Amino acid sequence: MTMVLIAIGCGLLAVIYGFVTSRQVLSAPAGDARMQEIAGAIQEGARAYLGRQYRAIAVVGAIVAILIWIFLDGMGAPLSTVSFLIGAVLSGVAGYVGMNISVRANVRTAEAARTSLQGGLTLAFRSGAITGMLVAGLGLLSIAGLFWFLTGPSDLAPNDRSIIAALTALAFGASLISIFARLGGGIFTKAADVGADLVGKVEAGIPEDDPRNPAVIADNVGDNVGDCAGMAADLFETYVVTLGLTMVSVALLVRASEAELTALMSLPLLVGGVCIIASIIGTYFVRLGSSNNIMGALYKGFWVTAGLSVIGIFYVTWRALGDLDTVIGAELDGTGGYTGWALVWCMLIGLAVTGLLVWITEYYTGTNYRPVRSIAQASVTGHGTNVIQGLAISLEATALPTLVIVIAVIATFQIAGIIGVAFAATSLLALAGMVVALDAYGPVTDNAGGIAEMAGLPDDVRSRTDALDAVGNTTKAVTKGYAIGSAALAALVLFGAYTTDLELYFPEVVVDFSLSNPYVIVGLLLGALLPYLFGAFGMTAVGRAAGSVVEDVREQFRSNTGIMAGTSRPDYARTVDIVTKAAIKEMILPSLLPVLAPVVVYFAILAVAGQAEAFAAVGALLLGVIVSGLFVAISMTSGGGAWDNAKKYIEDGHHGGKGSDAHKAAVTGDTVGDPYKDTAGPAVNPMIKITNIVALLLLAALAHGTM
Amino acid sequence: MTMVLIAIGCGLLAVIYGFVTSRQVLSAPAGDARMQEIAGAIQEGARAYLGRQYRAIAVVGAIVAILIWIFLDGMGAPLSTVSFLIGAVLSGVAGYVGMNISVRANVRTAEAARTSLQGGLTLAFRSGAITGMLVAGLGLLSIAGLFWFLTGPSDLAPNDRSIIAALTALAFGASLISIFARLGGGIFTKAADVGADLVGKVEAGIPEDDPRNPAVIADNVGDNVGDCAGMAADLFETYVVTLGLTMVSVALLVRASEAELTALMSLPLLVGGVCIIASIIGTYFVRLGSSNNIMGALYKGFWVTAGLSVIGIFYVTWRALGDLDTVIGAELDGTGGYTGWALVWCMLIGLAVTGLLVWITEYYTGTNYRPVRSIAQASVTGHGTNVIQGLAISLEATALPTLVIVIAVIATFQIAGIIGVAFAATSLLALAGMVVALDAYGPVTDNAGGIAEMAGLPDDVRSRTDALDAVGNTTKAVTKGYAIGSAALAALVLFGAYTTDLELYFPEVVVDFSLSNPYVIVGLLLGALLPYLFGAFGMTAVGRAAGSVVEDVREQFRSNTGIMAGTSRPDYARTVDIVTKAAIKEMILPSLLPVLAPVVVYFAILAVAGQAEAFAAVGALLLGVIVSGLFVAISMTSGGGAWDNAKKYIEDGHHGGKGSDAHKAAVTGDTVGDPYKDTAGPAVNPMIKITNIVALLLLAALAHGTM
Repeated sequence: MTMVLIAIGCGLLAVIYGFVTSRQVLSAPAGDARMQEIAGAIQEGARAYLGRQYRAIAVVGAIVAILIWIFLDGMGAPLSTVSFLIGAVLSGVAGYVGMNISVRANVRTAEAARTSLQGGLTLAFRSGAITGMLVAGLGLLSIAGLFWFLTGPSDLAPNDRSIIAALTALAFGASLISIFARLGGGIFTKAADVGADLVGKVEAGIPEDDPRNPAVIADNVGDNVGDCAGMAADLFETYVVTLGLTMVSVALLVRASEAELTALMSLPLLVGGVCIIASIIGTYFVRLGSSNNIMGALYKGFWVTAGLSVIGIFYVTWRALGDLDTVIGAELDGTGGYTGWALVWCMLIGLAVTGLLVWITEYYTGTNYRPVRSIAQASVTGHGTNVIQGLAISLEATALPTLVIVIAVIATFQIAGIIGVAFAATSLLALAGMVVALDAYGPVTDNAGGIAEMAGLPDDVRSRTDALDAVGNTTKAVTKGYAIGSAALAALVLFGAYTTDLELYFPEVVVDFSLSNPYVIVGLLLGALLPYLFGAFGMTAVGRAAGSVVEDVREQFRSNTGIMAGTSRPDYARTVDIVTKAAIKEMILPSLLPVLAPVVVYFAILAVAGQAEAFAAVGALLLGVIVSGLFVAISMTSGGGAWDNAKKYIEDGHHGGKGSDAHKAAVTGDTVGDPYKDTAGPAVNPMIKITNIVALLLLAALAHGTM
Repeated sequence: MTMVLIAIGCGLLAVIYGFVTSRQVLSAPAGDARMQEIAGAIQEGARAYLGRQYRAIAVVGAIVAILIWIFLDGMGAPLSTVSFLIGAVLSGVAGYVGMNISVRANVRTAEAARTSLQGGLTLAFRSGAITGMLVAGLGLLSIAGLFWFLTGPSDLAPNDRSIIAALTALAFGASLISIFARLGGGIFTKAADVGADLVGKVEAGIPEDDPRNPAVIADNVGDNVGDCAGMAADLFETYVVTLGLTMVSVALLVRASEAELTALMSLPLLVGGVCIIASIIGTYFVRLGSSNNIMGALYKGFWVTAGLSVIGIFYVTWRALGDLDTVIGAELDGTGGYTGWALVWCMLIGLAVTGLLVWITEYYTGTNYRPVRSIAQASVTGHGTNVIQGLAISLEATALPTLVIVIAVIATFQIAGIIGVAFAATSLLALAGMVVALDAYGPVTDNAGGIAEMAGLPDDVRSRTDALDAVGNTTKAVTKGYAIGSAALAALVLFGAYTTDLELYFPEVVVDFSLSNPYVIVGLLLGALLPYLFGAFGMTAVGRAAGSVVEDVREQFRSNTGIMAGTSRPDYARTVDIVTKAAIKEMILPSLLPVLAPVVVYFAILAVAGQAEAFAAVGALLLGVIVSGLFVAISMTSGGGAWDNAKKYIEDGHHGGKGSDAHKAAVTGDTVGDPYKDTAGPAVNPMIKITNIVALLLLAALAHGTM
């Protein structure tokens, strides 16, 4: 019990860090009146969008909560319902608070960049760190709090079914909000971005972030609602699902005394806690060296966190299990068992995977390496070759992450079975605080650049914000690869939870999950289809919404000629409003795809071939969606990041620089990469989770006879 | 035995049809001296490329033949080696002969289009039909001939291991050649096409097929070596693998008397034979109606063939099995068995799948439907939105084919188990003669248009060849979807062959193919990676080879200013030579990926986790490559076709027509789609087959103790 309370303490510490740091950030000077006016418009637009988005999600959430109460709680004590609501609300809070800091830090970063690069970096990164710590802290608080309440005051055994049900519902709440936030925010940000570029850069010939472009505020709002709020909700979800899943797996798959079980189930919470402390310390190491290398400064913070986490993981495992050599527990068949050393090794492998994924993503999206440079080179021969090379890189970028994940699965499974794989996923996610900090830094610097441009700050300020922003492109790509990588690592664990639940609820149904069962093939194919269909929806939605932005901006230029002359101000709010409506409308249908797919497949196969085959097909669907989703997501996010930085590389003066034909081709590639990397690609991660969790809930509902 | 001889007779009939029809085609007038000169250059280039390609392949083939002799024939009687060589040589012959007709029919089609659309259509389609009948005829001859020789003169039982080994080796020979031909031809055609467009249309501002462009002959050569020879080798492979696999499955999975087994194993051959006859009859129904609808004329031939095939399948099943009601044979566990009706229903489902895949492909790539029009519409707002919408359509295009395949698998499995699925795949492929005819028609009309342009034929001739060509874009897409669809349908059967072989060769090794085995997940992930990596190689190869074309053409323009003035002839042969070298060099490495993958995965997992897990991982690899490859291939081929026709749709006068900004954006989309639909996408099909067959050969080699 003490262990759980310690974890709760760490979660609170993260929240306190967020509170204290946000006071620091907000106390920084907020620039002149013009800057504050622009920032005010961005804040207003972001708040308006998020308010509307959360209202729309609240309707869906309320309906789902009622369904959960009916089907899972059997209209009795609303344990699952309340857990679902906690997950949903906290996922929303993480995004909302993070975004509120982000839209205030942007203008302060621009102001700080007036005097020094270090000043801008510190402000932007601190702001990102607030979001990061909130994500990890609230995530840890919710799981640890629930576990404490149920094993303490409610006096349940740690592996009581109620606890498993509550953790699953908590994860579902977080996932459901996060897919809406990821997709809605993703559609908003890219519709505004693509739309603004199309009429601004392409048609009107005005530069990016020109205040005469009516879509320019919407574009800046989008950075916050998509890259900050959507991302935070997504990572909150991933954090909760992964830690929760590890605890559930221990409960389902390990035979041990109650004390041992409590220790093993508390360990993920302690690891989460100690890594939060490591992340907080790490944030203070983000400082420019003499070489003014921004990426290097961010890496310094990351590596300090990783190093401290290694020590921390050793320490908490030793404290939680008493020592590292004794075998505790056994597998369900009575054999095996787990030593502290085995779990420590698995968690170190998880940390290594994090480091490798970060490095691979930087290789594929950084301007210093072959992939981005090859796309820049291909831009010289035109739009077509730029896109071809970008697509080639996006396909290629899936190879190394897959190999890393495959090797990690094999190694951790050899060391400690599925439990080992689960603990690796936990330590991977335990660094979420730091990783999210690096990511949430991106939209702040992106906005700071926009504000500097619109407020007409001197060129040297703009060049400082540009330097900060270029690094943001890579760090943004890192988080997405990291989230989807954790999903792949968790695949086996999720499937393990499904099969164990199946055996528990339906001991009389013999399900054949062998690849020679045609219903397994059918499930794999249908699962593999989901990310493709989902991606198609996302891409089309961005195209459609961007189209409405283009029309609005054209209409504003036409009806108010003073805008282009610079004598009158465009109606920024109108464009924000249009994108808001479009994004909310477009996000609903695709988000329901992963919710409905397992249910539809189950009942369709049930009707044709009976229950055993229906369970087999749904199980295979869960793996199909991961096997295919991993590749779709990585290719989209890495490819998109590479296209973006290939443009930046050319703008740095290569291949003819800004305005050259190569630059025009690179802008096309960047536009194509936008919905790839910020809408369709990142939303695949929550989609995979939802499909899996819905399948678990379906089993529970079927077992309760309520469905 | 009579049945096999009848099938051999049908195969011979197809070859005779090809011979007779080629005499007809060649006797048509070949145009004026200028046209013949151009056609001569194309013929020469095509022959030079194919000669060099086949020499390169011959080296690889000879090495593999020796390996097969050592590892599979144990350096004894070279049954597998000879079968491998037969498959390899005939696959090459189908492509070579088809291409030789194609490069002669092109100029004759242009000449015939001088007088009437029907004349051009007849010549182009007849030429395609020669290739189609050769593919089906040689395919049937090789399998039926081998089966006849081994069960007749060699007096082996129909399910003797030697027959299974010989059929597998035959399929391997065909597949190995076909991946080289598909990839080499694909790289050639698209490198020339993209390169010619980049310097011609984009840089020099001269139209497509302008004789001043030194790459124009290479572009026309490419249509023949890629879309004709490469495609023919691919479909020959698919035909042989599918029919052979059905026979092998019967041998492996059915318990029956020798007579019954012979009947069941001969049935796929008879179905192939009767569908060849139906296809030959169908070719005579390709005639324009009063509406001059070219697609309608081609469909008429297709539907007549399909209708006659339905009747033929009924008839031959009834003749082969005696009647349709008696249960013959049993499954390996002694239960079940197969009636003629059951098999007939499965084969009708296979025909229905063919029809549906054709219809779906036309929907996604035809100019009359939403997908292509949405891409054309998106072109109005620029290059970026064209590509975004094209990618969205390419993702979406995977949905319906997947559902059709999933439903077909469920239905045929319910009717007659895995054997039912196999027979559905057989009837799907039995129409190959007709489908290939429709496809091979494409490059002929494409070339005819080029020749008409270069020889300065009147506008009305060019408009007729353009009309013929637009339809070719859709029919070309159809074959690719059809080939990959058959691969997905065959997935279960291939995996069945793998597991049955495994049980036979290694009865003592208990392999767990359940999805809860982590090595199965590892295999699925690695298998899913293959099409991505392969696609990346293909796309990069095209980009690199196109770059060398661009440099050569620029150099020719620079050193010989008379070219652009029209006073001197460019050095076409030099460009052809450069593309040839590049394509041959680039095709080797990616082609070895599927050959090496199963072997490397087997030995890697063997070293870490033992033989049972190694077999599990390789088995899962086979399904992973199909589950992922199906989506990669369909999205690439359908997306590419849609991009191509969106350009054509704009050129027909929509959204501003030729020369408008929308048209420029559509040209970019078309360029992107080129390597998608003609290089990377279609080569996925032979890649899947090779991975599967190599796994089977690996088992055999391991069992013989030679590896």
